[in-house]
Amino acid sequence: MSKRSLFVLLSLAFAASCEQASAPPEPVADTPTRPTFSLATDEAYDFNRIPAYLESHQAVYDYIDNNLDDHLAAIQRWLRQPSISAQNVGIHEMAEMVRQDLEDMGFAEAEIVPTDGHPGVWGYYDAGADKTLVVYLMYDVQPVNPEDWRSPPFDAEVVNHPLGKVIMARGATNQKGPQRAFLNALESIIAVDGTLPVNIMVTAEGEEELGSPNYPQIVDAYEDRLKTADAALFPFNSQRPDGTVSVILGVKGILYFEVIASGGEWGGPARAEIHGSFKAIVDSPVWRLVQGLSTLVSEDGNTILVPNYYDDIRPPNVEESQLINAGIEQWSDQQMQAMLGVGQWIDGKTGKDAAIEYLFSTTLNIDGIWGGYTGEGVKTILPHRAAAKVDSRLPPDIDPDEALAKIRQHLDNQGFGDLEIVKLSGYPASQTSVDAPAVQAALSVFKKYTGNLAVQPRIAGSAPFYQFTDRLGLPLVPSGMGFGTGAHAPNEIMLVEPAKGTAAAGLADIEKAYVDFVYALAE
Amino acid sequence: MSKRSLFVLLSLAFAASCEQASAPPEPVADTPTRPTFSLATDEAYDFNRIPAYLESHQAVYDYIDNNLDDHLAAIQRWLRQPSISAQNVGIHEMAEMVRQDLEDMGFAEAEIVPTDGHPGVWGYYDAGADKTLVVYLMYDVQPVNPEDWRSPPFDAEVVNHPLGKVIMARGATNQKGPQRAFLNALESIIAVDGTLPVNIMVTAEGEEELGSPNYPQIVDAYEDRLKTADAALFPFNSQRPDGTVSVILGVKGILYFEVIASGGEWGGPARAEIHGSFKAIVDSPVWRLVQGLSTLVSEDGNTILVPNYYDDIRPPNVEESQLINAGIEQWSDQQMQAMLGVGQWIDGKTGKDAAIEYLFSTTLNIDGIWGGYTGEGVKTILPHRAAAKVDSRLPPDIDPDEALAKIRQHLDNQGFGDLEIVKLSGYPASQTSVDAPAVQAALSVFKKYTGNLAVQPRIAGSAPFYQFTDRLGLPLVPSGMGFGTGAHAPNEIMLVEPAKGTAAAGLADIEKAYVDFVYALAE
Repeated sequence: MSKRSLFVLLSLAFAASCEQASAPPEPVADTPTRPTFSLATDEAYDFNRIPAYLESHQAVYDYIDNNLDDHLAAIQRWLRQPSISAQNVGIHEMAEMVRQDLEDMGFAEAEIVPTDGHPGVWGYYDAGADKTLVVYLMYDVQPVNPEDWRSPPFDAEVVNHPLGKVIMARGATNQKGPQRAFLNALESIIAVDGTLPVNIMVTAEGEEELGSPNYPQIVDAYEDRLKTADAALFPFNSQRPDGTVSVILGVKGILYFEVIASGGEWGGPARAEIHGSFKAIVDSPVWRLVQGLSTLVSEDGNTILVPNYYDDIRPPNVEESQLINAGIEQWSDQQMQAMLGVGQWIDGKTGKDAAIEYLFSTTLNIDGIWGGYTGEGVKTILPHRAAAKVDSRLPPDIDPDEALAKIRQHLDNQGFGDLEIVKLSGYPASQTSVDAPAVQAALSVFKKYTGNLAVQPRIAGSAPFYQFTDRLGLPLVPSGMGFGTGAHAPNEIMLVEPAKGTAAAGLADIEKAYVDFVYALAE
Repeated sequence: MSKRSLFVLLSLAFAASCEQASAPPEPVADTPTRPTFSLATDEAYDFNRIPAYLESHQAVYDYIDNNLDDHLAAIQRWLRQPSISAQNVGIHEMAEMVRQDLEDMGFAEAEIVPTDGHPGVWGYYDAGADKTLVVYLMYDVQPVNPEDWRSPPFDAEVVNHPLGKVIMARGATNQKGPQRAFLNALESIIAVDGTLPVNIMVTAEGEEELGSPNYPQIVDAYEDRLKTADAALFPFNSQRPDGTVSVILGVKGILYFEVIASGGEWGGPARAEIHGSFKAIVDSPVWRLVQGLSTLVSEDGNTILVPNYYDDIRPPNVEESQLINAGIEQWSDQQMQAMLGVGQWIDGKTGKDAAIEYLFSTTLNIDGIWGGYTGEGVKTILPHRAAAKVDSRLPPDIDPDEALAKIRQHLDNQGFGDLEIVKLSGYPASQTSVDAPAVQAALSVFKKYTGNLAVQPRIAGSAPFYQFTDRLGLPLVPSGMGFGTGAHAPNEIMLVEPAKGTAAAGLADIEKAYVDFVYALAE
């Protein structure tokens, strides 16, 4: 049975209490103002109440220690197979490698899943267990510029690093390393026990780096069965070098669209750019774009002026407030601003105020804008077309299509019906309760290996995790022990053997923690 | 001397005096409104009062007819020498070819003129005459894509064309063809008479296609002598296939600048783009650009809201009004709109109203805008920088630097002091009176060869002709007989031998008309 019901009950309960405790958004008659939020409680979440996982599976741990070279080799085998989705390099070979590995491990079902894009992989391990874990895998990686790498990106050599021995390769940490480590953990349990304590459903996609456009098709094919599972895991190197395990419980949704201005019957050049001197008698699509966009936000760019855009935003509930109170010490304006190269936050906010704004507010951001001549020097044209890419980050309870409809209506009302809107992406927020049993199981395991937990109710970024939480009704644990860095960059690494003084786990402990998590989930 | 405007812009035919008899711009207290103009008179300029040039220089005409193959060969020699300024191909060879040709013709001075860019050429033919003509030449050409050409762009072959025999080559009409034809005319006079009826000063540049950045340095070197001249000529294929000679008496000036928004102490990412989710707490330079630009013009993009921007604009004077009245029949809204792919002019203006707006108004046009991610699909970033290229076409009496200062002041007053402005170009309008003796000489010669004149007081495009008219105080004649097309495009041609039914001149008549013009000027 799904955990969804518990999750929903918890969420509803918290939402109900917060409505009384927090300051509501301040509505103003004509000009929208940006809502400000306060927390529902001053209490901090008490992680002490979560016991460290006490069980020991010594035979499995020994198996891992005795076979660590083979486990490392399995990771290297995955990393040495290029699988660059954007360039269609090695995709089918990698999909088949994943499928074959599952079959070799004893998965009763191990199938390639055709999609409109790169194929997916489905696997089902039937342990005859009560509980079932859905494991999300991505087998694709980002492109590389090999000349920028210290060790060739598909050699997957173990090299020395200040933190210890690391595997350097494209995909080392994003995500082949931690994913194959998780499968190593499963293999070890099977080798010792002959089976697993939970059933496993694997959904693997080869287009995560392209924005997962066809992942929903993979879910489509197994939706009824996936809904019967108990939890979902995204194996992930979530540790920081100091050993702290970062657990992200939620993400914002996103609406992403283009606003396009073109010449047409209303005026402006329709076919192609024309000589700039015609501006004297010809309308300009670029000016229309600029004027239309300018009506969407306040002069400082920070308050959305689309009527009712903020209406459905809710303030932090009790659980979220407790988690923020527990984690706010780790929020450093100074460090973040230095990292980002930003002089100050909007309106000079700092500390908890900035953190709440960051996590709970919706946004309207121009990702890109273009039109006409953008090269060096002088060229005088009146462009026939200009466009902007705009995104809006959506906190829980905001529907992307409703948000888009409000923007369309606003532009129409302001006289910008000539501006075209093309939606490129849109999905809602996703959140798992810290009290979901799968999350509690993970946290208890992490506490066994390290004292430090950093649990966030949400990040301000977006991921289509609603596929798990909302569509399938599963709590999602996008976490694991282990440290890696360099995703999407040269010299990507995953730590496999920490040096003295490095608190993050090595490969053996990463796998042992996954072993514990699977057993904990079964309880 | 940007000739692309001359090629692209339509003709309007129009005449002399400098009174202000028209309705002035309508100033409004707070919100600027776009001034509307009416003509100073309903009378049309009477081209019948200009007598056709009556003299005949038969010996020189005979020389031209007897040496036409050599004259064609001289043009081909120039065209076969590539001289692509943007790619620095053949520049020095071409400059030396021009210099050597002048020396061979008997120019007392024929010198390479170093500049900060490609070299210029100075030539002085001392005829001991009373009058002196300054001849502006450009020896550079646009780049080519040879695969797009019917005949190789630097073979300069004579090929058949519906209008007759044409030379096809890069530079055939823009501008080596008509320029070398003019020198052929001078050579012919010298061959017959032993000297010229006027002294000639040649200033040639090799950077016209780059926007003439260093032409003022060439003028600097000979300014005192150039100021003693009587007129300036830009040899030009000004005929249309139907034989009409188009004479452009003026150009608008231009102000061209970039508006740049960047993150900094005020907020926004200063170093590089950051993740788009940070919009919740980080200012956006792109929004600042959009909001700042939006204050410059009205919602429809057509009225400049910068205070006092329209103050110095003057309505059409009597000469301009007479020329417009004489030429307005050639203005076709329908034809121009079809050519440009434009559904309607601003505010639904038509006919004379549109023509006056086009020629007398100032503009604020976005030539290009860019920032952030502009590729396919979805990428979520908060860009650290965005910019726009903006130009303003300046009718007479508007100083580009004063215009820019008003824009700067306005942005500051509106709270956009964080937007940087970088001026890329700026020069004032230029205009020669139709009653200037050099213009009357040219018109009388054109009337000898063709009945149709299309004389415009101005085009809406810009060229730095102020160098001649305002700096040196010379009337400028940017005209000649002859037809060509394809400037900046593949298959550029100049007509050399018209087919039956083509009214435009062939090479012999082009040269004879230049001969007549030089004699007419001497009178």
